[in-house]
Amino acid sequence: MLSDIKIGCSSTNTKYGKRLDTAIIELDTKANISGLFTSNKFKSAPVQVCLDQFKKKMHGKKMLIVNAGNANAATGEKGIEDTKKLINNISNLSGIEFNQILPFSTGVVGELLDMESLVPAFKDCIKNLSKNTWSDFAKAIMTTDTHHKMVKHEVKIGSKKFKIIGIAKGVGMIEPNMATTLSYVFTDLKIPTIKLKKLHKKACDNSFNVISIDGDQSPSDSTILVATGSVDIDIKRYEQKIETELLTVFRKLSEKLVLDGEGATKLIRINVKGLSSFDDCKKVALKIANSPLVKTAAYGEDPNWGRIISAAGNANVDEFDMNNLNLKIGKHLVLFKGNLSKSYSESKGKREFRKKIIQLDITLGKSKNSALIMTSDLTPDYISINSDYRS
Amino acid sequence: MLSDIKIGCSSTNTKYGKRLDTAIIELDTKANISGLFTSNKFKSAPVQVCLDQFKKKMHGKKMLIVNAGNANAATGEKGIEDTKKLINNISNLSGIEFNQILPFSTGVVGELLDMESLVPAFKDCIKNLSKNTWSDFAKAIMTTDTHHKMVKHEVKIGSKKFKIIGIAKGVGMIEPNMATTLSYVFTDLKIPTIKLKKLHKKACDNSFNVISIDGDQSPSDSTILVATGSVDIDIKRYEQKIETELLTVFRKLSEKLVLDGEGATKLIRINVKGLSSFDDCKKVALKIANSPLVKTAAYGEDPNWGRIISAAGNANVDEFDMNNLNLKIGKHLVLFKGNLSKSYSESKGKREFRKKIIQLDITLGKSKNSALIMTSDLTPDYISINSDYRS
Repeated sequence: MLSDIKIGCSSTNTKYGKRLDTAIIELDTKANISGLFTSNKFKSAPVQVCLDQFKKKMHGKKMLIVNAGNANAATGEKGIEDTKKLINNISNLSGIEFNQILPFSTGVVGELLDMESLVPAFKDCIKNLSKNTWSDFAKAIMTTDTHHKMVKHEVKIGSKKFKIIGIAKGVGMIEPNMATTLSYVFTDLKIPTIKLKKLHKKACDNSFNVISIDGDQSPSDSTILVATGSVDIDIKRYEQKIETELLTVFRKLSEKLVLDGEGATKLIRINVKGLSSFDDCKKVALKIANSPLVKTAAYGEDPNWGRIISAAGNANVDEFDMNNLNLKIGKHLVLFKGNLSKSYSESKGKREFRKKIIQLDITLGKSKNSALIMTSDLTPDYISINSDYRS
Repeated sequence: MLSDIKIGCSSTNTKYGKRLDTAIIELDTKANISGLFTSNKFKSAPVQVCLDQFKKKMHGKKMLIVNAGNANAATGEKGIEDTKKLINNISNLSGIEFNQILPFSTGVVGELLDMESLVPAFKDCIKNLSKNTWSDFAKAIMTTDTHHKMVKHEVKIGSKKFKIIGIAKGVGMIEPNMATTLSYVFTDLKIPTIKLKKLHKKACDNSFNVISIDGDQSPSDSTILVATGSVDIDIKRYEQKIETELLTVFRKLSEKLVLDGEGATKLIRINVKGLSSFDDCKKVALKIANSPLVKTAAYGEDPNWGRIISAAGNANVDEFDMNNLNLKIGKHLVLFKGNLSKSYSESKGKREFRKKIIQLDITLGKSKNSALIMTSDLTPDYISINSDYRS
């Protein structure tokens, strides 16, 4: 049962006023846990500590502790000390081992944690354990998110049911203004740690790792997958099914992040296929997704396909050949083997670009490889959110 | 003498009204010429034709023909045919061999050339040869540029003088809205073709190849260096000097492009040094230059150094180590070996970010390698220029 999980939240009464901005989740002894972290070489203090914790054996009761408002990144040795001090305090108060407590911080970069407000807030979280709800947790971890992000999912296999709850925060991904992507997914399935890690990696690769708002990864990006272990299903037999159901939750969370991206008004799905390597497909898709010209065209609802193929050609993929390029906007074929399709008209493209979700399909060869990247449009609001002075 | 060069311009009286939008430059038999073109795998028709022309021997009189308003890119075989037809016409009218005529087109992507207006306009250009000036040429090749871009430079070596004139167009580089980078630099020096190519490549690598407005290269980017051959100087002896003088002109043109970048209000110079490979230095510098978060912070005059190092960490360079990172904003040290410098204050950073030119210096190790990238800020005007519907 996911109801084994205890949630306690509180407020530091600082940056966000009385809003919840600190949270603790307590996990039972039999819960298994997998963590994946930013690939940015510059990692926040809590990410460095988490990576250390995962090197040790996770056993006994575990805790996830989160604060929003300050990422504790680029804070040097003092930052690491502060995080460890918080863990120590919580360990003393809760009786849970130091090594079993995972810290997460999200918010502004380059400022030291305000320990004076954090220590009592986390104390409060412990007092509140079991009193708070999933949506309290989802709200407590927000920074500049315009709303909290949660996905609840229930699956039936034969006579058995299992649940998945996913919670995430992050806007303007990746490395947003005073923000980070944090995501926490919980299932009541019993899954051994090694299998859990494998499922986690796969789900991330096809969800959080295919979204890109501004081409950057924050020093704090963290994602956690927990299997509480109360529902026992033949994992080997149903692995494919479980994989799919987890991916559904991870994908939905990712799409929520993109659509709440700073200033975003549209989701752009870019699917590139046919190159002989998957990496090359992904390279082309990413180049299109990160092109400011494609993203502003999406905002302007201008089906400017010249910019799409120009970005594609720029991905520096040897196999790229304009004479092999097919482009579809929504269901409409625009280019076939590099030539403008006779069936295409500007008004057809325009119709697709007016939609909330814009679908672009690029085929560059005959291989079955394909890579999907999701991004948002680039809007005046993105500029105003990100150029506003921090203070 | 650069006065050997004949310039003729005209107008198609279409997209830009009566403004000049077509131009021809005639070069004398003894002029040597070097051309460098976009590395985008998707190349416009004129770039493909130019690359073919350069495979043949350049001899006799030569011509550069340029039209602004339509890039003749993504126009398939018909695009190539049209370009060749224009060259053929001009060859018949001028008596200059087909192989000695280099075509350039800049403007919107994905539309066929309007041959009915271009053929008579180029006929006019030939009639006007010798009647037009350098600044007419600089104006005729503009697209969304807010002003024409020209650099005149005179150098004395001993008793001899030589001249360099550089002209460029391009805004919102690289791959701007209905635009492209075209640049033409002329010197009256006598330089053998092989040496000219070498000098050209070096100058570009340190000017046009270190600027990045939006991380994209257009299908049409072209740069030409011409040595007319009338001033005979000991090239071997003065090679270093000539290299420096050429670079001065190429750099000035590049900076003009950045500052006229779509919506740009600032020039950001990013210098990364100390990594054991130059390519890694460049990777880090480019990652910072193309980070929308860094670029919006520049626009907002917010010295948000967290974004700068976060982008740097994202460049995926193995050698990157936060504990080795020094960051300077202007003359102020912000981070020393990853720790906040005690001498730094927010107001110092703010003062640097208020300047028209923002200088960022990142040191990541002890090697002497260093890479410079120049970019512009990302502004609301960039969005409005690029999201406006084309028609």
